[in-house]
Amino acid sequence: MTGRVYLVGAGPGDPELLTLKALHILGTADIVLHDELVSLEVLQLVRRGAGILNVGKRCGTKTTSQEEINALMVYYASAGLTVVRLKSGDPMIFGRAEEEIAALQAAEIEFAIVPGITAALGAAAAAQVPLTQRGVSPALLLVTYNRAAGQPPVNWRSMAASGATIVIYMPGKDYHAISAELCAAGLSSHTPCIVASRASRPDQTLFATTLEQLTAIAALPAPALLIIGSVAHFAAIGSLETCTEPYSAGNDRQPPAPFN
Amino acid sequence: MTGRVYLVGAGPGDPELLTLKALHILGTADIVLHDELVSLEVLQLVRRGAGILNVGKRCGTKTTSQEEINALMVYYASAGLTVVRLKSGDPMIFGRAEEEIAALQAAEIEFAIVPGITAALGAAAAAQVPLTQRGVSPALLLVTYNRAAGQPPVNWRSMAASGATIVIYMPGKDYHAISAELCAAGLSSHTPCIVASRASRPDQTLFATTLEQLTAIAALPAPALLIIGSVAHFAAIGSLETCTEPYSAGNDRQPPAPFN
Repeated sequence: MTGRVYLVGAGPGDPELLTLKALHILGTADIVLHDELVSLEVLQLVRRGAGILNVGKRCGTKTTSQEEINALMVYYASAGLTVVRLKSGDPMIFGRAEEEIAALQAAEIEFAIVPGITAALGAAAAAQVPLTQRGVSPALLLVTYNRAAGQPPVNWRSMAASGATIVIYMPGKDYHAISAELCAAGLSSHTPCIVASRASRPDQTLFATTLEQLTAIAALPAPALLIIGSVAHFAAIGSLETCTEPYSAGNDRQPPAPFN
Repeated sequence: MTGRVYLVGAGPGDPELLTLKALHILGTADIVLHDELVSLEVLQLVRRGAGILNVGKRCGTKTTSQEEINALMVYYASAGLTVVRLKSGDPMIFGRAEEEIAALQAAEIEFAIVPGITAALGAAAAAQVPLTQRGVSPALLLVTYNRAAGQPPVNWRSMAASGATIVIYMPGKDYHAISAELCAAGLSSHTPCIVASRASRPDQTLFATTLEQLTAIAALPAPALLIIGSVAHFAAIGSLETCTEPYSAGNDRQPPAPFN
Protein backbone atom coordinates (compact mmCIF):
# COMPACT_ATOMS: atom_id res chain seq x y z
CA MET A 1 0.00 0.00 0.00
CA THR A 2 1.29 3.43 -0.93
CA GLY A 3 1.60 6.03 1.78
CA ARG A 4 0.91 9.69 1.52
CA VAL A 5 2.76 12.95 1.92
CA TYR A 6 1.68 16.06 3.78
CA LEU A 7 3.43 19.35 3.03
CA VAL A 8 2.90 21.08 6.35
CA GLY A 9 3.57 24.64 7.49
CA ALA A 10 5.25 24.72 10.91
CA GLY A 11 4.58 28.43 11.42
CA PRO A 12 7.09 30.94 12.77
CA GLY A 13 8.38 28.89 15.70
CA ASP A 14 6.00 29.16 18.67
CA PRO A 15 4.38 25.70 18.79
CA GLU A 16 1.11 27.41 19.83
CA LEU A 17 1.04 28.94 16.33
CA LEU A 18 0.73 25.53 14.66
CA THR A 19 -2.69 24.83 13.22
CA LEU A 20 -4.81 22.11 14.79
CA LYS A 21 -4.54 20.21 11.51
CA ALA A 22 -0.74 20.35 11.55
CA LEU A 23 -0.70 19.11 15.14
CA HIS A 24 -2.95 16.17 14.29
CA ILE A 25 -0.85 15.23 11.27
CA LEU A 26 2.40 15.42 13.25
CA GLY A 27 0.73 12.94 15.60
CA THR A 28 0.25 10.42 12.77
CA ALA A 29 3.62 10.82 11.04
CA ASP A 30 5.89 7.89 10.35
CA ILE A 31 8.66 10.15 9.13
CA VAL A 32 9.21 13.90 9.21
CA LEU A 33 11.55 15.69 6.81
CA HIS A 34 12.05 19.18 8.21
CA ASP A 35 13.78 22.43 7.38
CA GLU A 36 16.56 23.78 9.56
CA LEU A 37 14.44 26.67 10.82
CA VAL A 38 11.62 24.52 12.25
CA SER A 39 11.77 24.97 16.01
CA LEU A 40 12.64 22.21 18.44
CA GLU A 41 9.36 22.86 20.29
CA VAL A 42 7.42 22.01 17.13
CA LEU A 43 9.49 18.87 16.50
CA GLN A 44 8.67 17.71 20.01
CA LEU A 45 5.05 17.38 18.88
CA VAL A 46 5.89 14.68 16.34
CA ARG A 47 4.55 11.19 17.17
CA ARG A 48 6.93 9.26 19.38
CA GLY A 49 8.61 6.58 17.35
CA ALA A 50 8.50 8.56 14.11
CA GLY A 51 11.73 9.23 12.24
CA ILE A 52 12.86 12.85 12.13
CA LEU A 53 15.28 13.99 9.42
CA ASN A 54 16.73 17.49 9.13
CA VAL A 55 16.95 18.18 5.40
CA GLY A 56 17.61 21.91 5.77
CA LYS A 57 20.41 24.34 5.30
CA ARG A 58 23.23 24.89 7.74
CA CYS A 59 25.31 28.02 7.42
CA GLY A 60 23.75 28.65 4.04
CA THR A 61 24.72 25.24 2.68
CA LYS A 62 22.03 22.72 1.95
CA THR A 63 23.04 19.43 3.46
CA THR A 64 20.38 17.66 1.42
CA SER A 65 19.70 18.74 -2.17
CA GLN A 66 16.18 19.45 -3.38
CA GLU A 67 16.39 16.38 -5.59
CA GLU A 68 17.33 14.26 -2.59
CA ILE A 69 14.42 15.65 -0.58
CA ASN A 70 12.04 14.84 -3.44
CA ALA A 71 13.46 11.32 -3.70
CA LEU A 72 13.17 10.77 0.06
CA MET A 73 9.50 11.80 0.08
CA VAL A 74 8.71 9.45 -2.81
CA TYR A 75 10.76 6.62 -1.32
CA TYR A 76 9.13 6.69 2.09
CA ALA A 77 5.60 7.18 0.74
CA SER A 78 6.11 4.34 -1.75
CA ALA A 79 7.05 2.15 1.20
CA GLY A 80 3.62 2.86 2.69
CA LEU A 81 4.65 5.45 5.25
CA THR A 82 2.91 8.66 6.23
CA VAL A 83 5.45 11.33 5.36
CA VAL A 84 5.38 14.89 6.69
CA ARG A 85 7.46 17.47 4.83
CA LEU A 86 7.62 20.13 7.52
CA LYS A 87 8.50 23.64 6.43
CA SER A 88 9.06 26.77 8.46
CA GLY A 89 6.16 29.23 8.00
CA ASP A 90 3.82 28.30 5.15
CA PRO A 91 4.76 25.66 2.57
CA MET A 92 3.54 27.68 -0.43
CA ILE A 93 5.66 30.79 0.16
CA PHE A 94 9.38 30.69 -0.72
CA GLY A 95 9.43 26.96 -0.03
CA ARG A 96 10.13 25.39 -3.46
CA ALA A 97 6.81 23.58 -3.02
CA GLU A 98 6.35 23.56 -6.81
CA GLU A 99 9.30 21.20 -7.18
CA GLU A 100 8.11 18.88 -4.44
CA ILE A 101 4.56 18.83 -5.79
CA ALA A 102 5.83 18.03 -9.29
CA ALA A 103 7.91 15.13 -7.94
CA LEU A 104 4.95 13.71 -6.00
CA GLN A 105 2.64 14.02 -8.99
CA ALA A 106 5.18 12.34 -11.26
CA ALA A 107 5.40 9.44 -8.81
CA GLU A 108 1.60 9.37 -8.37
CA ILE A 109 1.90 9.81 -4.62
CA GLU A 110 -1.20 11.14 -2.87
CA PHE A 111 -0.48 14.40 -1.09
CA ALA A 112 -2.12 17.31 0.69
CA ILE A 113 -1.03 20.77 1.77
CA VAL A 114 -1.53 22.10 5.28
CA PRO A 115 -0.98 25.86 5.47
CA GLY A 116 1.03 27.54 8.21
CA ILE A 117 1.43 31.01 9.70
CA THR A 118 3.95 32.62 7.39
CA ALA A 119 6.79 34.60 8.97
CA ALA A 120 5.35 38.02 8.07
CA LEU A 121 2.19 37.31 10.04
CA GLY A 122 4.12 36.00 13.03
CA ALA A 123 6.31 39.10 13.07
CA ALA A 124 3.40 41.51 12.60
CA ALA A 125 1.57 39.94 15.54
CA ALA A 126 4.67 40.06 17.74
CA ALA A 127 5.44 43.68 16.83
CA GLN A 128 1.76 44.67 16.94
CA VAL A 129 2.20 46.26 13.52
CA PRO A 130 -0.60 45.95 10.93
CA LEU A 131 0.63 44.94 7.47
CA THR A 132 -1.92 46.98 5.54
CA GLN A 133 -3.50 50.26 6.52
CA ARG A 134 -6.79 51.63 5.29
CA GLY A 135 -6.20 54.73 3.21
CA VAL A 136 -2.41 54.46 3.37
CA SER A 137 -1.01 51.04 2.49
CA PRO A 138 -3.46 49.18 0.24
CA ALA A 139 -1.34 46.11 -0.41
CA LEU A 140 1.28 43.79 1.04
CA LEU A 141 4.30 42.52 -0.84
CA LEU A 142 6.32 39.52 0.35
CA VAL A 143 9.71 39.12 -1.27
CA THR A 144 13.11 37.57 -0.54
CA TYR A 145 16.33 39.52 -0.77
CA ASN A 146 18.98 36.87 -1.23
CA ARG A 147 18.39 34.60 -4.16
CA ALA A 148 20.25 31.77 -5.81
CA ALA A 149 22.23 32.34 -8.99
CA GLY A 150 20.06 32.30 -12.09
CA GLN A 151 17.09 33.87 -10.36
CA PRO A 152 15.40 36.78 -12.13
CA PRO A 153 16.28 40.14 -10.60
CA VAL A 154 13.64 41.72 -8.38
CA ASN A 155 12.10 44.86 -9.84
CA TRP A 156 12.54 46.97 -6.72
CA ARG A 157 11.48 50.15 -8.50
CA SER A 158 8.07 48.70 -9.35
CA MET A 159 7.70 47.31 -5.87
CA ALA A 160 8.54 50.64 -4.28
CA ALA A 161 6.12 52.43 -6.63
CA SER A 162 3.27 50.05 -5.82
CA GLY A 163 2.66 51.69 -2.44
CA ALA A 164 2.53 48.27 -0.80
CA THR A 165 4.00 47.44 2.58
CA ILE A 166 7.13 45.43 1.74
CA VAL A 167 8.19 42.46 3.85
CA ILE A 168 11.63 41.12 3.01
CA TYR A 169 12.12 37.47 3.94
CA MET A 170 15.64 36.08 4.32
CA PRO A 171 17.28 39.53 4.33
CA GLY A 172 20.73 38.02 4.76
CA LYS A 173 23.49 39.83 6.57
CA ASP A 174 23.85 43.05 4.59
CA TYR A 175 21.07 45.39 5.70
CA HIS A 176 23.14 48.28 4.29
CA ALA A 177 22.73 46.90 0.77
CA ILE A 178 18.97 46.49 1.24
CA SER A 179 18.63 50.05 2.49
CA ALA A 180 20.65 51.38 -0.44
CA GLU A 181 18.69 49.34 -2.98
CA LEU A 182 15.28 50.38 -1.70
CA CYS A 183 16.26 54.04 -1.45
CA ALA A 184 17.65 53.88 -5.00
CA ALA A 185 14.33 52.34 -6.06
CA GLY A 186 12.49 55.41 -4.84
CA LEU A 187 11.58 54.85 -1.18
CA SER A 188 12.33 57.70 1.22
CA SER A 189 15.23 57.08 3.58
CA HIS A 190 12.82 58.03 6.36
CA THR A 191 10.51 55.10 5.57
CA PRO A 192 9.76 53.29 8.84
CA CYS A 193 11.11 49.77 9.15
CA ILE A 194 10.81 46.92 11.64
CA VAL A 195 13.57 44.37 12.02
CA ALA A 196 12.19 41.11 13.41
CA SER A 197 14.36 38.17 14.37
CA ARG A 198 12.96 34.85 15.59
CA ALA A 199 9.52 36.42 16.06
CA SER A 200 7.17 34.39 18.30
CA ARG A 201 10.10 32.50 19.86
CA PRO A 202 11.36 33.02 23.42
CA ASP A 203 14.49 34.78 22.09
CA GLN A 204 12.68 37.08 19.64
CA THR A 205 14.17 40.50 18.92
CA LEU A 206 12.24 43.39 17.39
CA PHE A 207 13.58 46.82 16.45
CA ALA A 208 11.78 49.84 15.07
CA THR A 209 13.98 51.94 12.83
CA THR A 210 14.04 53.61 9.41
CA LEU A 211 15.60 52.64 6.08
CA GLU A 212 18.34 55.20 6.70
CA GLN A 213 19.18 53.89 10.15
CA LEU A 214 18.91 50.28 9.05
CA THR A 215 22.46 50.60 7.79
CA ALA A 216 23.69 50.80 11.39
CA ILE A 217 22.12 47.52 12.48
CA ALA A 218 24.09 44.29 12.38
CA ALA A 219 22.20 41.33 10.97
CA LEU A 220 20.09 39.44 13.49
CA PRO A 221 19.79 35.65 13.88
CA ALA A 222 17.57 33.75 11.41
CA PRO A 223 14.75 33.51 10.81
CA ALA A 224 14.66 37.26 10.37
CA LEU A 225 12.68 39.66 8.24
CA LEU A 226 12.14 43.35 7.58
CA ILE A 227 8.75 45.10 7.50
CA ILE A 228 9.13 48.28 5.44
CA GLY A 229 6.49 50.94 4.96
CA SER A 230 4.45 53.53 6.78
CA VAL A 231 2.64 50.85 8.80
CA ALA A 232 5.90 50.25 10.66
CA HIS A 233 5.48 53.55 12.47
CA PHE A 234 2.73 51.89 14.50
CA ALA A 235 5.52 50.17 16.36
CA ALA A 236 6.35 53.50 18.00
CA ILE A 237 2.77 53.79 19.18
CA GLY A 238 3.09 50.28 20.53
CA SER A 239 5.59 49.13 23.07
CA LEU A 240 8.59 48.74 20.77
CA GLU A 241 11.61 50.77 21.72
CA THR A 242 13.34 52.47 18.84
CA CYS A 243 16.91 51.28 18.63
CA THR A 244 19.40 51.98 15.91
CA GLU A 245 22.52 50.63 17.53
CA PRO A 246 24.07 47.38 16.43
CA TYR A 247 22.54 44.29 17.94
CA SER A 248 24.56 42.36 20.46
CA ALA A 249 23.77 39.19 22.31
CA GLY A 250 23.70 41.08 25.59
CA ASN A 251 21.31 43.72 24.32
CA ASP A 252 18.49 43.91 26.80
CA ARG A 253 16.54 46.69 25.12
CA GLN A 254 13.97 44.40 23.63
CA PRO A 255 10.31 45.31 23.80
CA PRO A 256 8.27 43.61 26.49
CA ALA A 257 6.83 40.35 25.21
CA PRO A 258 3.07 40.38 24.75
CA PHE A 259 1.28 38.53 27.51
CA ASN A 260 0.38 34.92 26.84
CA MET B 1 -9.82 44.88 37.35
CA THR B 2 -9.40 45.69 33.69
CA GLY B 3 -9.79 42.87 31.22
CA ARG B 4 -7.83 42.31 28.07
CA VAL B 5 -8.44 42.07 24.36
CA TYR B 6 -7.15 39.50 21.91
CA LEU B 7 -7.23 40.30 18.20
CA VAL B 8 -7.42 36.77 16.83
CA GLY B 9 -7.21 35.39 13.31
CA ALA B 10 -9.91 32.80 12.65
CA GLY B 11 -8.25 31.53 9.47
CA PRO B 12 -10.05 30.75 6.20
CA GLY B 13 -12.97 28.80 7.66
CA ASP B 14 -11.95 25.20 8.35
CA PRO B 15 -11.80 25.05 12.17
CA GLU B 16 -8.80 22.70 11.84
CA LEU B 17 -6.89 25.68 10.40
CA LEU B 18 -7.17 27.64 13.64
CA THR B 19 -3.93 27.90 15.57
CA LEU B 20 -3.63 26.13 18.90
CA LYS B 21 -3.29 29.55 20.53
CA ALA B 22 -6.52 30.81 18.96
CA LEU B 23 -8.35 27.69 20.14
CA HIS B 24 -7.09 28.16 23.69
CA ILE B 25 -8.08 31.82 23.74
CA LEU B 26 -11.57 31.08 22.36
CA GLY B 27 -11.87 28.71 25.31
CA THR B 28 -11.26 31.54 27.79
CA ALA B 29 -13.36 34.26 26.14
CA ASP B 30 -16.05 36.14 27.98
CA ILE B 31 -17.21 37.87 24.83
CA VAL B 32 -16.42 37.41 21.15
CA LEU B 33 -16.89 40.17 18.56
CA HIS B 34 -16.65 38.51 15.16
CA ASP B 35 -16.69 39.37 11.49
CA GLU B 36 -19.45 38.12 9.23
CA LEU B 37 -17.10 35.75 7.37
CA VAL B 38 -15.97 33.80 10.44
CA SER B 39 -17.35 30.29 10.02
CA LEU B 40 -19.97 28.75 12.27
CA GLU B 41 -17.63 25.82 12.92
CA VAL B 42 -15.08 28.21 14.41
CA LEU B 43 -17.69 29.99 16.52
CA GLN B 44 -18.72 26.64 17.96
CA LEU B 45 -15.29 26.49 19.63
CA VAL B 46 -15.99 29.54 21.78
CA ARG B 47 -16.34 28.86 25.50
CA ARG B 48 -19.89 27.94 26.43
CA GLY B 49 -21.49 30.80 28.26
CA ALA B 50 -19.49 33.45 26.41
CA GLY B 51 -21.33 36.19 24.55
CA ILE B 52 -21.01 36.15 20.77
CA LEU B 53 -21.68 39.30 18.76
CA ASN B 54 -21.61 39.53 14.98
CA VAL B 55 -20.15 42.96 14.21
CA GLY B 56 -19.55 42.26 10.52
CA LYS B 57 -20.94 43.30 7.19
CA ARG B 58 -24.10 41.98 5.63
CA CYS B 59 -24.63 42.51 1.93
CA GLY B 60 -21.78 45.00 1.91
CA THR B 61 -23.29 47.11 4.70
CA LYS B 62 -21.59 47.22 8.05
CA THR B 63 -24.20 46.67 10.73
CA THR B 64 -21.76 47.91 13.34
CA SER B 65 -19.44 50.82 12.55
CA GLN B 66 -15.71 50.63 13.22
CA GLU B 67 -16.13 53.22 15.95
CA GLU B 68 -18.80 51.10 17.60
CA ILE B 69 -16.57 48.01 17.43
CA ASN B 70 -13.73 49.96 19.04
CA ALA B 71 -16.06 51.22 21.76
CA LEU B 72 -17.44 47.73 22.44
CA MET B 73 -13.94 46.29 22.86
CA VAL B 74 -12.97 49.04 25.29
CA TYR B 75 -16.27 48.82 27.16
CA TYR B 76 -16.15 45.07 27.77
CA ALA B 77 -12.43 45.03 28.62
CA SER B 78 -12.89 47.95 31.02
CA ALA B 79 -15.57 45.88 32.73
CA GLY B 80 -12.95 43.22 33.40
CA LEU B 81 -13.91 40.81 30.64
CA THR B 82 -11.67 38.79 28.33
CA VAL B 83 -12.62 40.07 24.88
CA VAL B 84 -11.82 38.26 21.64
CA ARG B 85 -12.02 40.32 18.45
CA LEU B 86 -12.25 37.46 15.96
CA LYS B 87 -11.39 38.24 12.35
CA SER B 88 -11.54 36.07 9.27
CA GLY B 89 -8.04 35.12 8.08
CA ASP B 90 -5.28 37.09 9.79
CA PRO B 91 -6.02 40.20 11.85
CA MET B 92 -3.15 42.24 10.41
CA ILE B 93 -4.11 41.96 6.71
CA PHE B 94 -7.00 44.07 5.40
CA GLY B 95 -8.61 44.03 8.85
CA ARG B 96 -8.44 47.69 10.00
CA ALA B 97 -6.37 46.43 12.92
CA GLU B 98 -4.56 49.76 13.08
CA GLU B 99 -7.78 51.49 14.14
CA GLU B 100 -8.59 48.90 16.78
CA ILE B 101 -5.05 48.93 18.14
CA ALA B 102 -5.09 52.72 18.36
CA ALA B 103 -8.39 52.63 20.28
CA LEU B 104 -7.07 50.04 22.73
CA GLN B 105 -3.85 51.97 23.27
CA ALA B 106 -5.76 55.21 23.86
CA ALA B 107 -7.87 53.46 26.49
CA GLU B 108 -4.79 51.76 27.99
CA ILE B 109 -6.32 48.33 27.51
CA GLU B 110 -3.85 45.43 27.47
CA PHE B 111 -4.04 43.51 24.19
CA ALA B 112 -2.28 40.84 22.16
CA ILE B 113 -2.43 39.71 18.55
CA VAL B 114 -2.86 36.07 17.54
CA PRO B 115 -2.12 35.51 13.86
CA GLY B 116 -4.29 33.40 11.59
CA ILE B 117 -4.01 31.63 8.25
CA THR B 118 -4.74 34.40 5.77
CA ALA B 119 -7.10 33.60 2.88
CA ALA B 120 -4.34 33.41 0.25
CA LEU B 121 -2.61 30.61 2.13
CA GLY B 122 -5.85 28.69 2.64
CA ALA B 123 -6.68 28.95 -1.06
CA ALA B 124 -3.17 28.02 -2.20
CA ALA B 125 -3.25 24.91 -0.02
CA ALA B 126 -6.70 23.92 -1.27
CA ALA B 127 -5.77 24.47 -4.92
CA GLN B 128 -2.30 22.94 -4.44
CA VAL B 129 -0.85 26.02 -6.12
CA PRO B 130 2.43 27.50 -4.81
CA LEU B 131 2.34 31.27 -4.38
CA THR B 132 5.95 31.86 -5.34
CA GLN B 133 8.08 29.92 -7.77
CA ARG B 134 11.83 29.72 -7.80
CA GLY B 135 13.20 31.37 -10.91
CA VAL B 136 9.78 32.56 -12.10
CA SER B 137 7.73 34.36 -9.48
CA PRO B 138 10.03 35.90 -6.87
CA ALA B 139 7.41 37.71 -4.84
CA LEU B 140 3.81 37.63 -3.65
CA LEU B 141 1.48 40.61 -3.64
CA LEU B 142 -1.73 40.66 -1.61
CA VAL B 143 -4.19 43.39 -2.54
CA THR B 144 -7.91 44.13 -2.38
CA TYR B 145 -9.92 45.16 -5.41
CA ASN B 146 -12.93 46.91 -3.95
CA ARG B 147 -12.11 49.76 -1.66
CA ALA B 148 -14.04 52.36 0.24
CA ALA B 149 -14.33 55.90 -1.04
CA GLY B 150 -11.32 58.01 -0.23
CA GLN B 151 -8.87 55.13 -0.55
CA PRO B 152 -5.76 55.76 -2.63
CA PRO B 153 -5.92 54.15 -6.07
CA VAL B 154 -3.97 50.94 -6.52
CA ASN B 155 -1.00 51.28 -8.86
CA TRP B 156 -1.83 48.20 -10.94
CA ARG B 157 0.85 49.00 -13.51
CA SER B 158 3.60 48.83 -10.89
CA MET B 159 2.13 45.70 -9.41
CA ALA B 160 1.95 44.00 -12.80
CA ALA B 161 5.54 45.07 -13.58
CA SER B 162 6.86 43.70 -10.29
CA GLY B 163 6.66 40.11 -11.54
CA ALA B 164 4.96 39.07 -8.30
CA THR B 165 2.14 36.58 -8.04
CA ILE B 166 -0.92 38.75 -7.37
CA VAL B 167 -3.65 37.62 -4.99
CA ILE B 168 -6.76 39.79 -5.06
CA TYR B 169 -8.78 39.66 -1.85
CA MET B 170 -12.44 40.73 -1.91
CA PRO B 171 -12.66 40.75 -5.70
CA GLY B 172 -16.31 41.79 -5.60
CA LYS B 173 -18.73 40.80 -8.30
CA ASP B 174 -17.18 42.25 -11.45
CA TYR B 175 -14.40 39.90 -12.56
CA HIS B 176 -14.65 41.48 -16.02
CA ALA B 177 -13.44 44.81 -14.65
CA ILE B 178 -10.54 43.13 -12.83
CA SER B 179 -9.49 41.32 -15.99
CA ALA B 180 -9.65 44.52 -18.02
CA GLU B 181 -7.72 46.51 -15.42
CA LEU B 182 -4.91 43.97 -15.08
CA CYS B 183 -4.57 43.54 -18.84
CA ALA B 184 -4.49 47.32 -19.25
CA ALA B 185 -1.77 47.39 -16.59
CA GLY B 186 0.42 45.15 -18.70
CA LEU B 187 -0.37 41.53 -17.81
CA SER B 188 -0.95 39.13 -20.68
CA SER B 189 -4.54 38.05 -21.19
CA HIS B 190 -3.20 34.49 -21.11
CA THR B 191 -1.93 34.88 -17.54
CA PRO B 192 -3.15 31.88 -15.55
CA CYS B 193 -5.64 32.60 -12.80
CA ILE B 194 -7.30 30.62 -10.01
CA VAL B 195 -10.71 31.61 -8.69
CA ALA B 196 -11.17 30.36 -5.13
CA SER B 197 -14.41 30.66 -3.21
CA ARG B 198 -14.81 29.57 0.41
CA ALA B 199 -11.50 27.70 0.27
CA SER B 200 -11.02 25.13 3.05
CA ARG B 201 -14.80 24.99 3.73
CA PRO B 202 -17.04 22.05 2.80
CA ASP B 203 -18.60 24.10 -0.02
CA GLN B 204 -15.34 25.38 -1.50
CA THR B 205 -15.17 26.03 -5.24
CA LEU B 206 -11.92 26.33 -7.22
CA PHE B 207 -11.54 27.14 -10.91
CA ALA B 208 -8.41 27.33 -13.03
CA THR B 209 -8.74 29.85 -15.84
CA THR B 210 -6.92 32.79 -17.45
CA LEU B 211 -7.33 36.55 -17.19
CA GLU B 212 -9.03 36.53 -20.59
CA GLN B 213 -11.52 33.82 -19.64
CA LEU B 214 -12.11 35.29 -16.21
CA THR B 215 -14.59 37.64 -17.87
CA ALA B 216 -16.93 34.69 -18.47
CA ILE B 217 -17.13 33.65 -14.82
CA ALA B 218 -19.90 34.92 -12.58
CA ALA B 219 -18.77 36.03 -9.15
CA LEU B 220 -18.56 33.26 -6.56
CA PRO B 221 -19.77 33.39 -2.94
CA ALA B 222 -17.56 35.21 -0.38
CA PRO B 223 -15.01 34.80 0.92
CA ALA B 224 -13.48 34.60 -2.54
CA LEU B 225 -10.13 35.53 -4.04
CA LEU B 226 -8.15 35.39 -7.26
CA ILE B 227 -4.60 34.03 -7.60
CA ILE B 228 -3.05 35.58 -10.71
CA GLY B 229 0.32 34.69 -12.20
CA SER B 230 2.29 31.91 -13.79
CA VAL B 231 2.15 29.83 -10.60
CA ALA B 232 -1.57 29.33 -11.25
CA HIS B 233 -0.74 26.98 -14.13
CA PHE B 234 0.27 24.42 -11.51
CA ALA B 235 -3.43 23.94 -10.93
CA ALA B 236 -3.61 22.20 -14.31
CA ILE B 237 -0.85 19.85 -13.21
CA GLY B 238 -2.85 19.23 -10.10
CA SER B 239 -6.33 17.89 -9.91
CA LEU B 240 -8.20 21.10 -10.71
CA GLU B 241 -10.46 20.94 -13.70
CA THR B 242 -10.28 23.93 -15.98
CA CYS B 243 -13.67 25.52 -16.23
CA THR B 244 -14.54 28.80 -17.87
CA GLU B 245 -18.30 28.59 -17.76
CA PRO B 246 -20.34 30.62 -15.33
CA TYR B 247 -20.67 29.17 -11.89
CA SER B 248 -24.03 27.83 -10.82
CA ALA B 249 -25.11 26.35 -7.54
CA GLY B 250 -25.63 22.96 -9.16
CA ASN B 251 -22.18 22.94 -10.74
CA ASP B 252 -20.63 19.62 -9.81
CA ARG B 253 -17.38 20.10 -11.67
CA GLN B 254 -15.40 20.96 -8.61
CA PRO B 255 -11.99 19.44 -8.08
CA PRO B 256 -11.83 16.51 -5.70
CA ALA B 257 -11.25 17.70 -2.16
CA PRO B 258 -7.82 16.83 -0.79
CA PHE B 259 -7.98 13.93 1.63
CA ASN B 260 -8.22 14.80 5.30
